[in-house]
Amino acid sequence: MPEQIPPDSVGLVEPQLAIFNTPLELACGQTLPHYELAYETYGKLNSNKSNAVLICHALSGHHHAAGFHSMEDRKPGWWDNYIGPGKPIDTNHFFVVALNNLGGCHGSTGPNSVNPATKKLYGPEFPIVTVKDWVNSQARLADMLSIEQWAAIIGGSLGGMQALQWSIDYPERLKHAVIIASAPKLTAQNIAFNEVARQAIMSDEGFHNGWYKEQNDYPKKGLMLARMVGHITYLSDDAMRQKFGRELRSGAINFDFGAEFQVESYLRYQGEVFSENFDANTYLLMTKALDYFDPAKDYNDDLVAALSHASCQFFIMSFTTDWRFSPERSKDIVDALISAKKNVSYLDIDAPEGHDAFLLPIPRYRNAFKAYLARIANEVKANEN
Amino acid sequence: MPEQIPPDSVGLVEPQLAIFNTPLELACGQTLPHYELAYETYGKLNSNKSNAVLICHALSGHHHAAGFHSMEDRKPGWWDNYIGPGKPIDTNHFFVVALNNLGGCHGSTGPNSVNPATKKLYGPEFPIVTVKDWVNSQARLADMLSIEQWAAIIGGSLGGMQALQWSIDYPERLKHAVIIASAPKLTAQNIAFNEVARQAIMSDEGFHNGWYKEQNDYPKKGLMLARMVGHITYLSDDAMRQKFGRELRSGAINFDFGAEFQVESYLRYQGEVFSENFDANTYLLMTKALDYFDPAKDYNDDLVAALSHASCQFFIMSFTTDWRFSPERSKDIVDALISAKKNVSYLDIDAPEGHDAFLLPIPRYRNAFKAYLARIANEVKANEN
Repeated sequence: MPEQIPPDSVGLVEPQLAIFNTPLELACGQTLPHYELAYETYGKLNSNKSNAVLICHALSGHHHAAGFHSMEDRKPGWWDNYIGPGKPIDTNHFFVVALNNLGGCHGSTGPNSVNPATKKLYGPEFPIVTVKDWVNSQARLADMLSIEQWAAIIGGSLGGMQALQWSIDYPERLKHAVIIASAPKLTAQNIAFNEVARQAIMSDEGFHNGWYKEQNDYPKKGLMLARMVGHITYLSDDAMRQKFGRELRSGAINFDFGAEFQVESYLRYQGEVFSENFDANTYLLMTKALDYFDPAKDYNDDLVAALSHASCQFFIMSFTTDWRFSPERSKDIVDALISAKKNVSYLDIDAPEGHDAFLLPIPRYRNAFKAYLARIANEVKANEN
Repeated sequence: MPEQIPPDSVGLVEPQLAIFNTPLELACGQTLPHYELAYETYGKLNSNKSNAVLICHALSGHHHAAGFHSMEDRKPGWWDNYIGPGKPIDTNHFFVVALNNLGGCHGSTGPNSVNPATKKLYGPEFPIVTVKDWVNSQARLADMLSIEQWAAIIGGSLGGMQALQWSIDYPERLKHAVIIASAPKLTAQNIAFNEVARQAIMSDEGFHNGWYKEQNDYPKKGLMLARMVGHITYLSDDAMRQKFGRELRSGAINFDFGAEFQVESYLRYQGEVFSENFDANTYLLMTKALDYFDPAKDYNDDLVAALSHASCQFFIMSFTTDWRFSPERSKDIVDALISAKKNVSYLDIDAPEGHDAFLLPIPRYRNAFKAYLARIANEVKANEN
């Protein structure tokens, strides 16, 4: 609900739909005969098409990364802190493309799309897509937009995994990969949290083996639980202490099972809102894409060998209190890049906010991000002339 | 299934039942007119009754802390690593008492006991009990056993909270409190994990608002989820990596939602076993006792003031990789004890196992534990003569 659009906003934006009729082979062996990708663009593509930046989204993200869809919008896009005129991903310099990934629930082909083979919704029969599949589908989007080479591909968390995969699979098609709060693969603990989320969803009576839409139902409680677990892991212990402490909603203990502590009522509310706005089958798919991501696997578990193909420059950032995608995992990427003799900059940012930090306006993060992207903008400009 | 009882085991043991007909007033304002506590004892009470040690259990524990119930038992009691002849809690020297707390599901009065007021099972109407209530009920057990003063009260996790509460509420009734992997109160993150567990149980259709026994049902999936979340938090990230890594059960990715990674199948199995052996209403009660524990609350949030009443000696231990009850929380207790000018020893043990470490045979932990308890045994002996 911006009374007026802030001057550093990309303003009112409109989602677009890219339609692909060339079949896409997926890692799982299945083929999508047809697919659509919802996307948005901010800023202008320059004449030699060298200023395009791709934004890859995380678990629950989508194509609406910046600006507003209408003057009634309560909130701007999910990365509005970082995309806009004068912001780190400066739309005065860059043509920014943000999309909703395959399997998503915000407009791209996914479980709620019609399966041409059955004329029914895909539902739980939508194939499990991987980060590699997403990168392939994004490369086709680049083709369609006539972008031969991205000035940068940028993502946080699962989004950073996509940027990393691009650098391996399409080395000539990006000049920079900016990988934030990410990992070269999930740890067992991370897979375990995802498994809890999946079990919560799949064991909900409202899930109906994934055919809930046909039953006019949905696994509300399961999605709530999945989000509650996720949310805890996105915040640091300290951030939760600062935000909630042991504050009681009514000031006193009630000796019942209502939401007594502020943190309980916050999590229930967050879980409830999420459950009403996110598709359960998509959530399952996204967590699987996370679990499966392991680019070293094709190279005898040798991440250095995997990254030896890369030719872009890398900027890796992590946050000190992020325990879901800890700085150690970012350092694993950095170490492998150094061993592979690649050009890499790394910054571990002191921030109390945990994994969530990558979405938040943190001065040191913002400044470093801005400086690195300004360098890219200068490179773009130098090559324009 | 011990083919023969190991020489350092307390051997075959038999649970006993203590019956109390004096009403017990609870912190919630309700009164239990009658209650029973299941307990076991190991070793012999000496003539001046000065060698008794009380073991307080954690979230899912009970009175069967050591030895075997029969030669067919697959496993010994939950703390058999630490209780027995020649072990740290040496039954050659100590008379050890372990009980199942009120609200439990292993023989003490709890949700599956008959409510004398209604002649039905208590079910969800069993009052929410607190650590303070438990300590009061344990003091009555001590009275019944003619134990005026415990040589030591020992507990890990939620068990440590009981030992701490004893030191404040019954300062003259214990000489030592051994508090392991515990905390003076839960953090917001900890409360949040408990809330997820409760929501998982309460939202399960099998819960029937807590009246599942009457429906011949139980919230199997909810209990599974609760245990899965719990289990993740009891292990360190490193312990999970070492135990499971990213090992696949079948060696290859299946692109489905079965348990593909070893960690998934392990957690599902652990959750399933737990769900078949633990009562849902008890789980809810135990998590609430954890959340509510905050002895400083009665003293204007001043833990030093709360502990100023204590007269026992304290031994606090924590484990470096325990993130559910981190060493910082143990240090909060130590700092408050120092400020209150109490006698306290503290050891932070380098152990990769996370919170679970307190149950495991870790040499440094075992040695320190043994040395401290040997000192107590010597004190007991000195006073006997």
